[in-house]
Amino acid sequence: MSRADPVTWPATGPACPAPRTDTERVLLGDGSGGKLCAALVRERFLPHFGNPILGQLGDGALLELGGGSLVVSTDTFVVRPLEFPGGDIGALAIHGTVNDVAMMGARPRYLAAGFVLEEGLEIALLDRIVATMANAAREAGVLLVTADTKVVDRGNADGLYVNTTGIGEPIPGFAPAPALARPGDRILVSGPLGRHGMAIMAAREGLALQTEIASDTANLWPLVERLHETAGADVHVLRDPTRGGLASALNEIAAAARIGVQIDEGALAVPDDVRAACELLGLDPLYVANEGVLVAFLSPDAADRALAAVRDHPLGREATLIGEAVPRHPGTVVMKTGLGGTRIVDLLPGDQLPRIC
Amino acid sequence: MSRADPVTWPATGPACPAPRTDTERVLLGDGSGGKLCAALVRERFLPHFGNPILGQLGDGALLELGGGSLVVSTDTFVVRPLEFPGGDIGALAIHGTVNDVAMMGARPRYLAAGFVLEEGLEIALLDRIVATMANAAREAGVLLVTADTKVVDRGNADGLYVNTTGIGEPIPGFAPAPALARPGDRILVSGPLGRHGMAIMAAREGLALQTEIASDTANLWPLVERLHETAGADVHVLRDPTRGGLASALNEIAAAARIGVQIDEGALAVPDDVRAACELLGLDPLYVANEGVLVAFLSPDAADRALAAVRDHPLGREATLIGEAVPRHPGTVVMKTGLGGTRIVDLLPGDQLPRIC
Repeated sequence: MSRADPVTWPATGPACPAPRTDTERVLLGDGSGGKLCAALVRERFLPHFGNPILGQLGDGALLELGGGSLVVSTDTFVVRPLEFPGGDIGALAIHGTVNDVAMMGARPRYLAAGFVLEEGLEIALLDRIVATMANAAREAGVLLVTADTKVVDRGNADGLYVNTTGIGEPIPGFAPAPALARPGDRILVSGPLGRHGMAIMAAREGLALQTEIASDTANLWPLVERLHETAGADVHVLRDPTRGGLASALNEIAAAARIGVQIDEGALAVPDDVRAACELLGLDPLYVANEGVLVAFLSPDAADRALAAVRDHPLGREATLIGEAVPRHPGTVVMKTGLGGTRIVDLLPGDQLPRIC
Repeated sequence: MSRADPVTWPATGPACPAPRTDTERVLLGDGSGGKLCAALVRERFLPHFGNPILGQLGDGALLELGGGSLVVSTDTFVVRPLEFPGGDIGALAIHGTVNDVAMMGARPRYLAAGFVLEEGLEIALLDRIVATMANAAREAGVLLVTADTKVVDRGNADGLYVNTTGIGEPIPGFAPAPALARPGDRILVSGPLGRHGMAIMAAREGLALQTEIASDTANLWPLVERLHETAGADVHVLRDPTRGGLASALNEIAAAARIGVQIDEGALAVPDDVRAACELLGLDPLYVANEGVLVAFLSPDAADRALAAVRDHPLGREATLIGEAVPRHPGTVVMKTGLGGTRIVDLLPGDQLPRIC
């Protein structure tokens, strides 16, 4: 199947924000994890900084140093509001970076943190965030080893931004990467979709939903460890579908590996409350951020035992196999819909929800 | 000599901003590198995150990983204005972090960067900053290996913040640290004081000075390499006196090593234009930030050859020996003044200049 095939297009919902019209200034959508964001990196940063390691544009980088190797990944967290059901910016700053290290097949070990505090930030709020952050680090088994604090004038930084850089220890012989997906691979998703993004959205907009949606923010290393134990090198790709949601993660993998991706709408777990909130707001859960879900591409004969191992962990109880990699339509993600049709699931230009992590 | 001895006290100039009066909110001075900043870290972060590595509060951390070792250091840059004579936030983000790694006795090798861009930032300005940053990285021999970009709404982030985390390769047997200063050590300062801070201040305030003061922002690794080659383990402490200036760096070393520090005002190199601008604004150059100067504590018999080696490099042409570590008044820095008296050079509560890096 190619893009010329008869599929429902464009994706349903407000999945197509206006394309970039201003090329002289940075747009909010440039930070979305979508097409604009990819273009910003490709056009503004890579021409200056290009090198083979950065050029891989993974969740992090695998480095050689003094005879050993390590994985490093960095992320800045600018989420609003700072606290939300299920977590806060501190928990997110640990999980987000620990997960990026884990998706490279490395055990997260150390963290560096850079705080930007707004003058006037309540000390009590800072204390709560630091406590959550420290707890999340402890639970994930990572040590904060160095940090930096800056204070900026009132009216900047929305209270607090925090950057975390994670350092992990690669598991020898285990190096999943988006480019390693192969036709035939089965695609595992470890949990239900959209909780983090919709929790943020509901908290930000003061939505009065029947049930409160809590963020799924979590350390995914235990699932990675199980996948490694049960499937080893049969785990070709690991990715946490954060900014831009599952749709963006699958598109990036399809592009990196030059394979097609075919998924089944019926196999996707979307909680009822997330689905209801998305319908209310006209959002597509495929594009909503997750912070406690991973996607794995697995050799077909390893898929079932990997699924069983993931389901055996509390974080993975609702794991499903949602589709497969195919040799057709390389670079394109196609979904069989509940109505029996198919539609292309494209990368969004910008994001449905800005500043969700 | 103890604090009860007759010395000029307090320090001259506006060296004593009002003490903290608000304990419920973050103050601008909390990000200063002075006493408030130290208290924020001690009271708000260490109780939650305390561990032996973080507790050393060095410029970075020395880590063990997979049988090897590495040094990591992180810093967020929030300087205003983004561009200034002698550099911009991009150059600073490379030099600041590379230097922190170098001060740990490690060769800077890799960098991770996290950008926070303000919606509406001019692309042309971003391009200039990224180009300077890439140049500075190339000159310093470090590779940017992974990065993250976030965009925040208009009115935040003053255009651009950037966090850089540096990873370095420790030189075996070379691990200078503030706690290793010993009585008798000679103190080397590699260049003239105050250029960076006064360049920022002049640019920010639109000061019409007779000559333009340019920031001294530079990669200090070449000087560290020379010090290692000529003095090896006789280099006890390396520190770059950035936020809080030379005075704060010396105080931190005096406190960490429980030694006294005695310096000679006549031996300090303060450029005429910096001195004039400081007098105009009522600032003390001892507390003004430097970005291309290092302080070294050296065994007395290694001091002269180390000084010669540093002076042989363009960055160190104006290096001087400014004083020594003494067994008296541990934790206190005392300066012999030009008038023949002595005064205590204390840590400031806050900073004279906020947001200089």
